[in-house]
Amino acid sequence: MYNNVTTGRQTVASTKLKSVLRTDDLPTKYYNILHDLPAALPPPLDPKTMKPVSPEALLRLFAKECVMQEVSTDEFIPIPEEVQEAYLRVGRPTPLYRATRLEQKLKTPAKIFYKREDLNPAGSHKPNTAIAQAYYHKKEGTERLTTETGAGQWGSALALATAMFGIDLTVYMTRSSYVQKPYRKTLMEVYGAKVHASPSALTNVGRRFSSDDPDHPGSLGIAISEAIEDCVTHDNTKYSLGSVLNHVLTHQSVIGQEARMQMEEMDADPDYVVGCIGGGSNYAGIAYPFMRDKLRGKSDAEFVAAEPKAVPSTTRGEYRYDYGDTGEMTPLVKMYTVGHGYQCPPIHAGGLRYHGKAPSMCMLIDKGYMRSVAYSQNEVMDAGLLFAQTEGVVAAPESNHAIKAAVELALECKRKNEAKVILFNLSGHGLLDLKAYSDKLANSLVDYEPDEQAIRGALEAVPLVR
Amino acid sequence: MYNNVTTGRQTVASTKLKSVLRTDDLPTKYYNILHDLPAALPPPLDPKTMKPVSPEALLRLFAKECVMQEVSTDEFIPIPEEVQEAYLRVGRPTPLYRATRLEQKLKTPAKIFYKREDLNPAGSHKPNTAIAQAYYHKKEGTERLTTETGAGQWGSALALATAMFGIDLTVYMTRSSYVQKPYRKTLMEVYGAKVHASPSALTNVGRRFSSDDPDHPGSLGIAISEAIEDCVTHDNTKYSLGSVLNHVLTHQSVIGQEARMQMEEMDADPDYVVGCIGGGSNYAGIAYPFMRDKLRGKSDAEFVAAEPKAVPSTTRGEYRYDYGDTGEMTPLVKMYTVGHGYQCPPIHAGGLRYHGKAPSMCMLIDKGYMRSVAYSQNEVMDAGLLFAQTEGVVAAPESNHAIKAAVELALECKRKNEAKVILFNLSGHGLLDLKAYSDKLANSLVDYEPDEQAIRGALEAVPLVR
Repeated sequence: MYNNVTTGRQTVASTKLKSVLRTDDLPTKYYNILHDLPAALPPPLDPKTMKPVSPEALLRLFAKECVMQEVSTDEFIPIPEEVQEAYLRVGRPTPLYRATRLEQKLKTPAKIFYKREDLNPAGSHKPNTAIAQAYYHKKEGTERLTTETGAGQWGSALALATAMFGIDLTVYMTRSSYVQKPYRKTLMEVYGAKVHASPSALTNVGRRFSSDDPDHPGSLGIAISEAIEDCVTHDNTKYSLGSVLNHVLTHQSVIGQEARMQMEEMDADPDYVVGCIGGGSNYAGIAYPFMRDKLRGKSDAEFVAAEPKAVPSTTRGEYRYDYGDTGEMTPLVKMYTVGHGYQCPPIHAGGLRYHGKAPSMCMLIDKGYMRSVAYSQNEVMDAGLLFAQTEGVVAAPESNHAIKAAVELALECKRKNEAKVILFNLSGHGLLDLKAYSDKLANSLVDYEPDEQAIRGALEAVPLVR
Repeated sequence: MYNNVTTGRQTVASTKLKSVLRTDDLPTKYYNILHDLPAALPPPLDPKTMKPVSPEALLRLFAKECVMQEVSTDEFIPIPEEVQEAYLRVGRPTPLYRATRLEQKLKTPAKIFYKREDLNPAGSHKPNTAIAQAYYHKKEGTERLTTETGAGQWGSALALATAMFGIDLTVYMTRSSYVQKPYRKTLMEVYGAKVHASPSALTNVGRRFSSDDPDHPGSLGIAISEAIEDCVTHDNTKYSLGSVLNHVLTHQSVIGQEARMQMEEMDADPDYVVGCIGGGSNYAGIAYPFMRDKLRGKSDAEFVAAEPKAVPSTTRGEYRYDYGDTGEMTPLVKMYTVGHGYQCPPIHAGGLRYHGKAPSMCMLIDKGYMRSVAYSQNEVMDAGLLFAQTEGVVAAPESNHAIKAAVELALECKRKNEAKVILFNLSGHGLLDLKAYSDKLANSLVDYEPDEQAIRGALEAVPLVR
C-alpha cells in the first residue's frame, strides 16, 4: 500500500530540528505591549505647537483603525479574518528551527533557535504589518497609498499587500538604493507599484534636496518627508509606515506569539531573546510576547537587540524628543536618537539606517528591561557567512546583526559552560542583498563608525523639548 | 490565559487554502518509475563503441549508489536518515497551496493547486537530488565534485549540499550567465564553491571553444563537457548531474509523494498534473508518483509538460539516440532531442535550455502517457506577472511555463464549464531572475522560435544509431 510507504513515522529526531505549526495555530489576536509597559508612553508632539498631536492630524495620514490602535492600551486586538487569510497565503505560521549545525561548529553547549520570517514572497517580516494596514485602508475606502523605502524590503512588502487588496501604491525609494538595487524596484513594479527615486522632482521637499544635486543619494528621512507630502497634497491618498509606530509593532506580535508556542513545543524556554533593530519592529515582533512575561515578573529572560555601529541610536544616542523624518514634517516622539539630521553611512543593512527607534522599545531600554549592542558591518557579514555555511540560509545583512549577537552569546555560554537557550529572529533573506556578500568575499567591505562630533552635531540640531 | 488567545481554532476556511505536512510525513523512500515503465529503457551507449555503456565507465563519474539506482528497477529506494535530516533542514516537507485568487481572476470553475519547491535556501527543487548525491559521495569518500550550471539553480543547490556534507565543489557556469547573473555566482561562493566561467582555459574542451573567442557565451552542453574532463583528469574527484538521469528523477519523487498526500488531505484528485521541462527532473518529481497510478490503470489523469518554443525538444525534436553534451563526451541516450549541437537561444529560463530530455519521460511521451506543449517567453512571463499579482509569489521564468500551461487548462475548463482539478509544480522562485521581469515590464523581451532548418541541421549532425 503506497501510503504506508510514505507516511511511516521517521526514525530521525525530526521533532527537535524544527517546529511547524498547523494553519489552525495562526494567532487570531495581536498583542499590544502598551497594556503592560511600566509607564505611559510620552505623547507624540505636533511640530508646529510642540503640544501633544491630535488624533485628527494622524487621521489625515493613517487608517482610522491604525490610529485607534496607536493609542490603545487594550491587551489584545483581534486580527480580521481577511488578514488571517492573507497571512496564511504568504506563509504564516512560519517555522522555527534549531541551529544544531551552527551549535556544533561553535562547539557551544548553548541551544540556538531561530524564527523564519524570510519565507514569504517579500522576503522579510514586513508583510505582517503591510497586510494589516492595506486591509484596514481597503475597508475604509482608501484608493491610494504612499510610502518610503530604503533597501526596499518595506516597499516590496507593501507592494505585495496592496496588490492583494487592490490599492494603488506610490513608493519613494532612496536614490542610492534605487540605483544600486534595481531588482528591488522591479519586484515592487511586478506587484503593480509606482516607484520614484528620492529625492524626486515630484515634491517640494524632494526639489529642495535634488535641485542642487540631481544625483543626491537620498535618505530614509527625506523619503518619508516626500511620501507624506505626496499624501497630504492628493485626494483619497493615505500614508503607510513600516516600523517605529505602536500599531506597526503590535501587528508584528504574530511572530513572537507563534515563537512562544513553538518554543513550548520544542521544550525550550529562551534565556535570551535576540534580534536586530532599525526602527524596532521585527525585534518587537519576536520579543514583546516574551517581554510580557518579564514585565509581569514571570520571566528572567534577557532581551538583547543589535544595531549597526554606523547608526548607533541606542548605544550612543540620547533618549529625547526628535522628529521621525529629516524634513521635519512628522510629529516628534521620545526615543533614542542620533538626531534626525544624522548622515547615516551607506552600510548594506539599509533597513537599519534610521536615526531613531520605536518609543516603546526605547522606554524598555531606558528602564533596563532590555539592552542593546552594536557591531561593525564586517563582523555581521562574517556571522552571515558562518550561518549560511552551517545552517544553509543566506540571511539579510540586517538579520546578520541578530546572528552575530546570538553567536556572541553562544560563545559566552561556551566560556562559562552554560547550556542556555538563545532565540533569535531571522527577519529576512539576503537573496536581493548578495552584493553585500560579494563585497565581503572580495574583502572590500568598509566599516563605518561616526566620531563623537558627528553624533553631537546632529543631536545639537534637534530642538529641545521641555 | 495567554495560550487560549493564540491557539483558538480559526473561523476562516484555512484548511482548504493550503496543506502543510508534519515533519513526520516526510517520505522515507524514493519512488523509481523504472519499476512501472511500459517497456525497458533503451540502454545508454558508449560514444566510442556505440555499444551499451558499462557500469564501470559510469563509476568513474558518479557515486556507486547513484550508478546502482540508475539501472535499478526496484520500486522503492530507502532515503538515508542523514538525507532525511538534511531535507527537513532545508524546508521539506514543502507546503501545497490552492490558487484561489488566480482562479477568481480567471473566473474559472477549475481548482488550481501548486506545490511549493521554491522555499528552500537554493530556491528550487534542485536540492532534492543535490543533497542525496552529496551524501552518497561523502559516504563513499569523494573529496571533490565537479558540475556545470546554466542559470545557476543547479550550481547553487549542489553548493548548498556540498557545504552541508563537507565536500569541495568546482562549478563550470556558462559564461553568459556568469556575466549576467553575478549574484548566482556569489550565492555559490557563499557556500564555499569555486566557480569558473565556461568555456574556460582550464580544460581542453574549454580551450577548443574559448581560444578563438575569449568572450564565447558558452552553453550547458560545453559546461558539462568541461566538468566531466575536470573530473576524469583529477584524483578523488567525481561528477554530479542535476537532471536527465534516472537516479536524479528518482530523488525528485519526494515532491510528488508529498503532493499525493496533500491532495488527498485537500480532498482533491488531479485531472491534470502540470510542470515545466528542461531536463525533466522537476516534472518527473511531481508527476511520477501520480503516473504510477496511470501506468497501473488506476487513474485517468492527464500529464502536461511545458517547454520553451525556443528549445522545442519534445514538440519539434526527434525520439532517437543523441549525446548528452555538446563536446560528445557523455554516453548517447535515447530521448527527444533537437540535436546536441543545437544553438539554444538566450531565453531567461536558463534551466530549460537543454537540447534533450530525460529518457524515461521521452518514452512516456512516445507511448502517449503524457503530452507536451511549447510557449514563447513573452507568453510565460505574462503568466508569471498574473501569478505574482494574484497569488503573490514571483516564480522563476522556468516555472512560469508551468503556470502558463495551468492557466491555459483553467481557461479551457471555463469554456467547457468543467470544474476540473489542476496541479502544477512551482519549481523555483524568480528573485534571482528579476531581470526577466524587468525586461517584460519594459516590453523588451524577445521571442525566439527556430526555423525548420535550424532544427533539421542540428539533428543531421547527430550520428544515426541502428
